[in-house]
Amino acid sequence: MTQDNLPAPGAPDIEIARAATMDPILPLAEKRLGVPPEALVPFGHHKAKVSLEYINSLKSKKDGKLVLVTAITPTPAGEGKTTTSVGVTDGLNQIGVNAMVCLREPSLGPCFGMKGGAAGGGRAQVIPMEDINLHFNGDFHAITSAHSLLAALIDNHIYWGNEQEIDPRRVVFRRVVDMNDRALRNIVIGLGGPANGVPRENGFDITVASEVMAILCLANDIEDLRERLSRIIVARRRDKSPVTAGDIGADGAMAVLLKDALQPNLVQTIEHNPAFIHGGPFANIAHGCNSVMATKTAMKLADVVVTEAGFGADLGAEKFLDIKCRQSGLWPDAVVLVATVRALKMQGGVAKGDLGAPNAGAVEKGAVNLKRHITNLKKYGLNPVVAINHFIHDTDEEVAVIKKLGEELGVKVALSKHWAEGGKGAVELATAVKEELDKGKSEGKLLYPDDTPLAKKIETVAKEIYGAEGISLSSAAANSLKEFEKLGFGHVPVCIAKTQYSFSTDPTNLGAPSGHTLEVREARLSAGAGFVVAVCGDIMTMPGLPKKPAALEIGLDKDGQIVGLA
Amino acid sequence: MTQDNLPAPGAPDIEIARAATMDPILPLAEKRLGVPPEALVPFGHHKAKVSLEYINSLKSKKDGKLVLVTAITPTPAGEGKTTTSVGVTDGLNQIGVNAMVCLREPSLGPCFGMKGGAAGGGRAQVIPMEDINLHFNGDFHAITSAHSLLAALIDNHIYWGNEQEIDPRRVVFRRVVDMNDRALRNIVIGLGGPANGVPRENGFDITVASEVMAILCLANDIEDLRERLSRIIVARRRDKSPVTAGDIGADGAMAVLLKDALQPNLVQTIEHNPAFIHGGPFANIAHGCNSVMATKTAMKLADVVVTEAGFGADLGAEKFLDIKCRQSGLWPDAVVLVATVRALKMQGGVAKGDLGAPNAGAVEKGAVNLKRHITNLKKYGLNPVVAINHFIHDTDEEVAVIKKLGEELGVKVALSKHWAEGGKGAVELATAVKEELDKGKSEGKLLYPDDTPLAKKIETVAKEIYGAEGISLSSAAANSLKEFEKLGFGHVPVCIAKTQYSFSTDPTNLGAPSGHTLEVREARLSAGAGFVVAVCGDIMTMPGLPKKPAALEIGLDKDGQIVGLA
Repeated sequence: MTQDNLPAPGAPDIEIARAATMDPILPLAEKRLGVPPEALVPFGHHKAKVSLEYINSLKSKKDGKLVLVTAITPTPAGEGKTTTSVGVTDGLNQIGVNAMVCLREPSLGPCFGMKGGAAGGGRAQVIPMEDINLHFNGDFHAITSAHSLLAALIDNHIYWGNEQEIDPRRVVFRRVVDMNDRALRNIVIGLGGPANGVPRENGFDITVASEVMAILCLANDIEDLRERLSRIIVARRRDKSPVTAGDIGADGAMAVLLKDALQPNLVQTIEHNPAFIHGGPFANIAHGCNSVMATKTAMKLADVVVTEAGFGADLGAEKFLDIKCRQSGLWPDAVVLVATVRALKMQGGVAKGDLGAPNAGAVEKGAVNLKRHITNLKKYGLNPVVAINHFIHDTDEEVAVIKKLGEELGVKVALSKHWAEGGKGAVELATAVKEELDKGKSEGKLLYPDDTPLAKKIETVAKEIYGAEGISLSSAAANSLKEFEKLGFGHVPVCIAKTQYSFSTDPTNLGAPSGHTLEVREARLSAGAGFVVAVCGDIMTMPGLPKKPAALEIGLDKDGQIVGLA
Repeated sequence: MTQDNLPAPGAPDIEIARAATMDPILPLAEKRLGVPPEALVPFGHHKAKVSLEYINSLKSKKDGKLVLVTAITPTPAGEGKTTTSVGVTDGLNQIGVNAMVCLREPSLGPCFGMKGGAAGGGRAQVIPMEDINLHFNGDFHAITSAHSLLAALIDNHIYWGNEQEIDPRRVVFRRVVDMNDRALRNIVIGLGGPANGVPRENGFDITVASEVMAILCLANDIEDLRERLSRIIVARRRDKSPVTAGDIGADGAMAVLLKDALQPNLVQTIEHNPAFIHGGPFANIAHGCNSVMATKTAMKLADVVVTEAGFGADLGAEKFLDIKCRQSGLWPDAVVLVATVRALKMQGGVAKGDLGAPNAGAVEKGAVNLKRHITNLKKYGLNPVVAINHFIHDTDEEVAVIKKLGEELGVKVALSKHWAEGGKGAVELATAVKEELDKGKSEGKLLYPDDTPLAKKIETVAKEIYGAEGISLSSAAANSLKEFEKLGFGHVPVCIAKTQYSFSTDPTNLGAPSGHTLEVREARLSAGAGFVVAVCGDIMTMPGLPKKPAALEIGLDKDGQIVGLA
């Protein structure tokens, strides 16, 4: 299943991806997953959606096992969580385990901003890489459409007599676009006189931060999707009572716009192992997990399902467990915690330009970050396998530091070379994961029970996971939390929006800071998704583009091939 | 090829469409058009895009003939231009002509507003109807994305030092969303302090009005597309010189976002005849034609290609001829002008509620509208076939009025029953069209030469087509036109944005008004599309939703089937 004709792993990911031969997706689905062609909706010859009807028919099948891939705190040095998710999946297949991977869909905005593509790297990629990075089967566009429809219906409702008595000053449902567009963060709409609506403040978030995205990713089926949509709180009346999407009649049409997007997308790894790529909330501003539909469907089709949670374990894994698992009944049978020598050196204070030099001391210093994440995962009753995502310049001495830490903490550490070697390079890691799976599921526990007050939930995450001394609520946030409890939403989990670069709200505070305070600026209720978003520090739900956006380098060459999509 | 199992034509279009059996699209393309499966990109089992590579390979093939379908001035009674385009295509196939149809893609916004779907009606529909009406292969979403990327890059450029010295007061490139959202017509963006951009006035249009949409529809190939994108004028500097999308480096990434959308979409009529549905500018606010790529490709694949131009012939046909044909070198070999007895009665002053009663006098009175359109088409050297799109309550006497007018003007009049009977019902019309085609192409001529000054071009359309006495330019519009000429764009055609409901700018002025003045409020230069938009009267490039939007009735039933999509 390996591909021997590929360019060396140092080549740009897009060149490796393009050189890889792909199996036609319909036969692959039939052979590897037992999914018949009529259960699939092809998008080209190498992508397909799985029909909701077929998914329904799987209910009585036994579930496979679930592996969560998470990581240390991200740095510009890169950790390769997606790459490792793909690598361990290919590695499991190498050792005879029928495994598939469940990833999130990349967002267009960041793709044209700083980040480039998000489909793995080196020999551990999902393909077709370009399609996955652009428009991917229209899911995010459908989310943007459904969100835009609701936004338009709200202002239209106010315009035509406002039967629900919406207070235009208290419309809480913002607008979205799948683009990094800072100029739309804070806007005034409805200008130009009576024919053009009622003037009011408004703003755009990026699509991945939309409650509609969260709902699509947490819905169990199409009816659950519609019900959740109907529960979205869009505004308050003068008497402060909430107005929902259901109150203004938007949920049916929104569900119609989303019904195809709810179908998981099947593609393949470079080594022809099946992959679902579905849903894409960011873990810094949203809940950061692949869809429940995709994860659960994959568990019906494969013996082992590998899925990632976004950014570091403080954000992605916390939300995977406390939100996605809490709501869906899922629980991981094993956890992989990805670290790299380079990233640990940065956590230990080394500047990006100096990462080339061997520095076991810095690794040791930075390993406090890894240690904190391991300790955190143990609070959930989970014993992670640490994956060292190997770079060619890593020294044995540096690797030894991490292995020693693993021994101290009683966790396995596996060196993994999937980036350079594909699944063959991930056999050590896959074997370690398989040993964990063979032990059977551990007794897991959520970080806090449902009935903890909302502010206390935020404080629990801040103290237990971020190592903070406490939280500081703005008066607006404090009032909102009280109001949400009064409305009957005290029982939902919290989704903390905060920088991914530190356990604290200061992105430059590396390692394993403690004693800091988590500043909660704002609280937003996502009644349909079923959580409260706590916006902390300076985090923005609409990113901006950098001075030299990636878009400026992206184009088509004279053969019509895409260039510049990293 | 007819389907005998369908519900009676009085049933909702969606029920007929859903009951129709569809041929799998890959074999259909091979059998009917000679397109091999590898030249197609399937979207599900019944839709496919045609690859640009394959289209390139067709260059040396002989062209088929082109039939333009246009209509009288639209009324709420309905004319059925799309329905007739499908009907005459099915009819041509019934009489042994290898014909296919080229339509525009419906826009999401209106689908949730007033209009419902736009894929024909009765037995003359293109299918799968629901997919065509929703998201259709992602083309409009790609246009919205490419447009949004350019908009974000402009504000980002200003934010990060403004190397091009863009005057923020003179950014002319607006934003778009594919939704009727009047509250976004006039907005102020960039609020919230220095980190959130530079405050300035801005506004959203609906996606169909985007210059990017026009460019996609007029581009000859991917390189022409990129070049046109680079020519879009986005702003002025302090010295009034124009800043283009190319100047800020956006064209490459925009072309990447649009490369799949440039591929025509193949579907089928209920009678399994091939149809391209591609591009979708509205004819009231944009140029209103199917893409040049689709029309030209269809002419390589079929002997006769039927294509529609939006709304009445004053808008759609004028723009088809003076913009699309001028730029592409196409010219119709025959023209069908669609009228209905009911619509002519409304043009004759009958209220919608009274249309049920026979009223040959009103038809005669309203026929001035039909007569004006026929006379107009003759100015292009075109002799239309009038198609009476038959409703069951039309009387022989009413029909006779139209036939008599046809005789007077020397044009054929054919009664067509495709709505009730499909292609069999359109044999009379198809036969009349075939007779016109067999005569060979007429000597056609454009309404005005390229070197006419811009204001004079608008005046020519106003006088010759709308029957106006003259035009009145706002001072802003007059200044803009002079500026566009100074910039070297005096040679481009004009695209008049105006109400579709009257030859005048007053939507209640029915029949064939004359003596009126065309008020030009604003002029916008579309340097990439290659025309100047003259915004006239009260027309809006962002529609609003009605008090009871169609969205409120749209939803999923308990089997997950869409309801309420008319």
